[in-house]
Amino acid sequence: MARVEGNLDALRREIENSDFDAVVAMSPENAPYASGVLLWTQRSIRDRLALVVMPKKGSPTLIVATQEEGYCREKSWIEDIRGYVQGYKSPIDVLAEVLEEKGLTAGRIGYEPTYLSVDYYEQLVAALPEAKFESSEAQFASARMVKSESEIEVLKRAAIATERALMETYSAIKPGDVESELVARLGSEILRGGAELPAFLYLTTGPNSGHAHPDPTDYRIRPGDLVKTDCGGYFSGYYSDVARTAVLGKATEEQKSIYRRISQVHQATIKSMTPGTLASEVFEVAVEGYKEVEISFSLSFAGHGVGYAIHETPMLAGDDHTPLEPGMFFSVETRVRWPGKAGYHIEDAVLITKSGPELVTKFMDTSHLMEL
Amino acid sequence: MARVEGNLDALRREIENSDFDAVVAMSPENAPYASGVLLWTQRSIRDRLALVVMPKKGSPTLIVATQEEGYCREKSWIEDIRGYVQGYKSPIDVLAEVLEEKGLTAGRIGYEPTYLSVDYYEQLVAALPEAKFESSEAQFASARMVKSESEIEVLKRAAIATERALMETYSAIKPGDVESELVARLGSEILRGGAELPAFLYLTTGPNSGHAHPDPTDYRIRPGDLVKTDCGGYFSGYYSDVARTAVLGKATEEQKSIYRRISQVHQATIKSMTPGTLASEVFEVAVEGYKEVEISFSLSFAGHGVGYAIHETPMLAGDDHTPLEPGMFFSVETRVRWPGKAGYHIEDAVLITKSGPELVTKFMDTSHLMEL
Repeated sequence: MARVEGNLDALRREIENSDFDAVVAMSPENAPYASGVLLWTQRSIRDRLALVVMPKKGSPTLIVATQEEGYCREKSWIEDIRGYVQGYKSPIDVLAEVLEEKGLTAGRIGYEPTYLSVDYYEQLVAALPEAKFESSEAQFASARMVKSESEIEVLKRAAIATERALMETYSAIKPGDVESELVARLGSEILRGGAELPAFLYLTTGPNSGHAHPDPTDYRIRPGDLVKTDCGGYFSGYYSDVARTAVLGKATEEQKSIYRRISQVHQATIKSMTPGTLASEVFEVAVEGYKEVEISFSLSFAGHGVGYAIHETPMLAGDDHTPLEPGMFFSVETRVRWPGKAGYHIEDAVLITKSGPELVTKFMDTSHLMEL
Repeated sequence: MARVEGNLDALRREIENSDFDAVVAMSPENAPYASGVLLWTQRSIRDRLALVVMPKKGSPTLIVATQEEGYCREKSWIEDIRGYVQGYKSPIDVLAEVLEEKGLTAGRIGYEPTYLSVDYYEQLVAALPEAKFESSEAQFASARMVKSESEIEVLKRAAIATERALMETYSAIKPGDVESELVARLGSEILRGGAELPAFLYLTTGPNSGHAHPDPTDYRIRPGDLVKTDCGGYFSGYYSDVARTAVLGKATEEQKSIYRRISQVHQATIKSMTPGTLASEVFEVAVEGYKEVEISFSLSFAGHGVGYAIHETPMLAGDDHTPLEPGMFFSVETRVRWPGKAGYHIEDAVLITKSGPELVTKFMDTSHLMEL
């Protein structure tokens, strides 16, 4: 698997310029970002914390369950690695010891309040009653927003492989195919495309396309049915997130019209994504677009940054006033749904470059409703 | 997808017998359990909370992001469903409103402190300063420990399908195969076996077998290499979790000896899992077994309950004194690893029945090291 490195220098600068004596990376996004090691079980085994202590001065420490310790010693750039046996010792106790060693028992410590559980936090405060704990999520978000070269490479590869998996799956659909089997086929194609794991496989047919994230069903697809898919995988731990809508056989005029209008909004949104434009301005373009084509839209975002997290800043949302910068990587999504009836969704990977937005997922023509 | 129902009556009795005025299911295990709807994005989009408010008296309320609302109206037994637009309204504000409506602003409210983030918790306490928030995780754990008939059916189906996917993958391995391609093949087989999604695919070959949860590599397998796999999928949202170890070609005497000893510990552990035996006693059998065969063991558990969560109570651990009961469903795992060198892992699904432990994953013979 390709070795991916985030922009650690940017993270170090953020810490340097902050008021923190140390920041602690905790989440399944920030701990791998800071340590350079994917810690898969963070995502599935909630209490198996992996923590990266990054002091403003001095060297960092990585705290992991012993199951992951040997692997981290092989893969991480961090030299000081402490293993804990889950069930015998709490990772929070190790964290308190490490902060104590670093002379920070009364320090100002950055942590992740939208990630850390109440239970672990209460342990932490009890162990270090004199320390001040404050959110350092902004520092991580800021460092992670502009992707490194190797991150851009993997995010592009991930998005393209996912669009190809979609195309492979769509091109073979025939009447009578079972929705759940199409889901399995799509997942297999994403794996064949180089993912370590599919992350989500919302392939929906006919009336099920009216739902966003339903379970796969035994519905057998019929001519005239929509096939709406929102899917992604993990590629070197980074997410892909691509959506396509097609119809089996001939589309009705109504289907074509809805799709054409959605596509119009989508293209206008992407076109607006030039460096310097605020994320909130891009959102407004989308909102205006929906109004213009008379498609109802009530969600609070028109897309999102993507990386180690599926949704990360900048969000293409009304309250995110981050100016777009070259190296930012987005999923732009335009959609409409009538639950249990019909749904349309186009989602593309877009890289911001000096000369404007670069559409990464351009294998399929999304300007009109594809007829399978 | 088969409709699965947990033991809601048991959960209602737990609430009835507790001191809580209401409990709130929050986690990706408890919210689906309480609502009867799989809310997939809870697992991937951390801030998109789904909450089930279950008052001791009166009817429950389900709080979900509007993306999931229509689906919940179709699938949940709960009639009162409140959608919130993520980004415009916090789910915690909706929760506070609902608790207020139910007359519980000063009530004793059960929540999930090992799941809920500090950030959301602080919002909650600020919104309802007079309420008392205490953990109701024990109530959920207790209700979920003994599986319903439909849960047993799906957990068996999941485990068997996963073992078959492993067998399909193992039976086709040949020298020169690339590890990452074997991972893709395994994931495809798990999907073909009926999973909505593979959950984890730790197929490791040769020296990589010494790690527990590494990334797939481009290593090409050679005769004499170990193939160690720990994998699972989501089946109707429930986890499977099965591990197997084999060797490509002829095993050495040392490999056979290590495997035989591991297998001996494994069989003894499973054999001890009769109704009434404490989970901690099963753990002690494993610990004694490792000692007897002179295999080093430092982990704190020899297996775990499995369901909507990959690790759930009872844990086969020294500090879990729960007596085993018919209807409990376990993953029993026996393993040894030398990081970067070699690793052996056997993990089986075991159902507790009146007459003793029932080995669910019995397709492959795990009494000796399989030669591929």
